[in-house]
Amino acid sequence: MSSKAKKPAVVLLSGGLDSAVTLAEALDLGYEAHALSMDYGQRNRHELNCAARVAKSLGVKQHVVLKVDLASFGGSALTSDIAVPKGEKKAGEGIPVTYVPARNTVLLSLALAWGEALGAFDIFIGANAVDYSGYPDCRSEYIMAYEKLANLATKAAVEGDGVFSINAPLIKLSKARIVRHGFRLGVDFSLTSSCYDPAPDGAACGECDSCRIRLKGFKDAGSSDPIRYLT
Amino acid sequence: MSSKAKKPAVVLLSGGLDSAVTLAEALDLGYEAHALSMDYGQRNRHELNCAARVAKSLGVKQHVVLKVDLASFGGSALTSDIAVPKGEKKAGEGIPVTYVPARNTVLLSLALAWGEALGAFDIFIGANAVDYSGYPDCRSEYIMAYEKLANLATKAAVEGDGVFSINAPLIKLSKARIVRHGFRLGVDFSLTSSCYDPAPDGAACGECDSCRIRLKGFKDAGSSDPIRYLT
Repeated sequence: MSSKAKKPAVVLLSGGLDSAVTLAEALDLGYEAHALSMDYGQRNRHELNCAARVAKSLGVKQHVVLKVDLASFGGSALTSDIAVPKGEKKAGEGIPVTYVPARNTVLLSLALAWGEALGAFDIFIGANAVDYSGYPDCRSEYIMAYEKLANLATKAAVEGDGVFSINAPLIKLSKARIVRHGFRLGVDFSLTSSCYDPAPDGAACGECDSCRIRLKGFKDAGSSDPIRYLT
Repeated sequence: MSSKAKKPAVVLLSGGLDSAVTLAEALDLGYEAHALSMDYGQRNRHELNCAARVAKSLGVKQHVVLKVDLASFGGSALTSDIAVPKGEKKAGEGIPVTYVPARNTVLLSLALAWGEALGAFDIFIGANAVDYSGYPDCRSEYIMAYEKLANLATKAAVEGDGVFSINAPLIKLSKARIVRHGFRLGVDFSLTSSCYDPAPDGAACGECDSCRIRLKGFKDAGSSDPIRYLT
């Protein structure tokens, strides 16, 4: 341990672009990062490999991958056999089928359990309300309600050991700003994956919502995306 | 399917006394019960066997046991190697070491995910604020905050498909009243387990907090507990 102990934080890490930048931000703020990924039966196994590579590349204290078989609940293109939609989303189409039921709530709850066990009162999540306007659990209102809950839910908070903060540093940023911020923080984007439906070797489809948003983000940031695309 | 379809509900089922009565209550109210247990690495494996027997005995639509390895987070006597305290708790001793970090928050989040996937807007939990006054996540205030969160967190609620209710029918009842209510509803208490530290064959220790509260509950209800005790 160094002479000046760093404050611990739990950082949710999916292997995607946003959570990589969020982890880099937590490290830049001086936190000791405990990275948490959830293996929720997502069809995209490549994502979890990316999470491990990002954690190693940026330097975390530890990285835990918790298996939670949400797939047995069904209900989303990311975990079941519903086709991932390709091409541009029409305006007003609502919440995409790639939405996973209560995903951020499950993720934050696991992070909260770990945070309490660790004595880590800061939780970081890469939620973003701009590009994922269709996801209810990516809104500031939701994050604030979760933070309130966390401080009612736990022995640590109730006994006054600390106050939980749910940090969502990217929540109001455009993808282009997230990309630029990531470059400044030294994120190696070649290690990340955003595609909802990658090829077996990990190449991104380039056509799903997530690929389109990512490609546009790099373009708007005046840079190019280092990952490999099929198209 | 019967001519009159029943409303589905997700019921958290631990294998303990309180959740068995909660399940019986949900069935008595006319719900089609989808029972959810979490295998969180608890040392007490007997509890999960009890959950399966209670589910079968009362008659649920389905019973899912989700494995979530909270033990890898440490922090509680129920999942790690800290000794379970025996004998009477001293007044003002605060939250017991048998508290599992954020357990009800994790449980409710998994129930919420499943509820959303099923289209089940009623979630039942056997939380009780009387006997577990030390547990922050057994208070009405906490349950209400969770209900508010659930309705911000989910596509189903945001798109107006329904409003989530977190039902905690036992929250203000004494153990004696819970026991009496369970008898009225036909709960077979011999199938349940409450002990924090049962013998390998499932016999209850009779000395941990949970056994003491349970035994006193049966006594105050004027009946006797049908499970086997070591002492």
